Amino acid sequence: MSTSAHSHDREEGLAFQPKFDASGLVTCVATDAASGDVLMVAHMNEEALRRTIASGDAWYFSRARNALWRKGESSGQTQRVVEMRMDCDQDAVWIRVEQTGAACHTGRRSCFYRKVTTAEGDTRLSFVDAERLFDPAAVYRK
Amino acid sequence: MSTSAHSHDREEGLAFQPKFDASGLVTCVATDAASGDVLMVAHMNEEALRRTIASGDAWYFSRARNALWRKGESSGQTQRVVEMRMDCDQDAVWIRVEQTGAACHTGRRSCFYRKVTTAEGDTRLSFVDAERLFDPAAVYRK
Repeated sequence: MSTSAHSHDREEGLAFQPKFDASGLVTCVATDAASGDVLMVAHMNEEALRRTIASGDAWYFSRARNALWRKGESSGQTQRVVEMRMDCDQDAVWIRVEQTGAACHTGRRSCFYRKVTTAEGDTRLSFVDAERLFDPAAVYRK
Repeated sequence: MSTSAHSHDREEGLAFQPKFDASGLVTCVATDAASGDVLMVAHMNEEALRRTIASGDAWYFSRARNALWRKGESSGQTQRVVEMRMDCDQDAVWIRVEQTGAACHTGRRSCFYRKVTTAEGDTRLSFVDAERLFDPAAVYRK
């Protein structure tokens, strides 16, 4: 099959054929099934994808720690997957989840707790929805 | 400053300091400001970020074409940015956009037009919200 035929198949077919990058990863976006807010952007390798599909709990692959992890295994802040979707070229996954507590390791509900603002050509951040639901020092250093 | 102090500053500070990867890119998730649906996952380099912030229109960097592009420059399907947020470690951007027509090059509203389903241990995709809003053959081959 030509590259183009492969590409068409991946985009229009119904076979599950994730396209992993050179590190063996796809990008995963997790949104809150209730609010629609983006909670986090992370990565999954083949095993994380497989376990997520099999268990219904979100598993990721940490590039920093070079390790598979089940979301919430340290913090207790698990994610239950309501729906999983693949994008056109199957290198990104979108999961809608029921989030227990906070998705972010800083203790916030979402990792996206700062918005970009500009004033007089100056780009800054400002906090929004930045309340902490847990104290990361207490949760991760036990 | 130590690595840890740098990291704390990037996570808790209000300075806009995107953390580009080895290819000079951050990941960008675009969601529909009205529906909350994830429309696409793409990448921005420093110039794409700068132009998006300055113009309010979404600009991306295509890894496949190795080129900066303004969303909709070929298709007319532009994205107006309503809000931009940075994630905790500033290597991912979330933009809420007003999408003209379809975000996906296949002509669908969203790139995520297939959901993952499992039956008897077999993982497949099924179409959902997969109606085409334009004919890609007509739009891109003019």
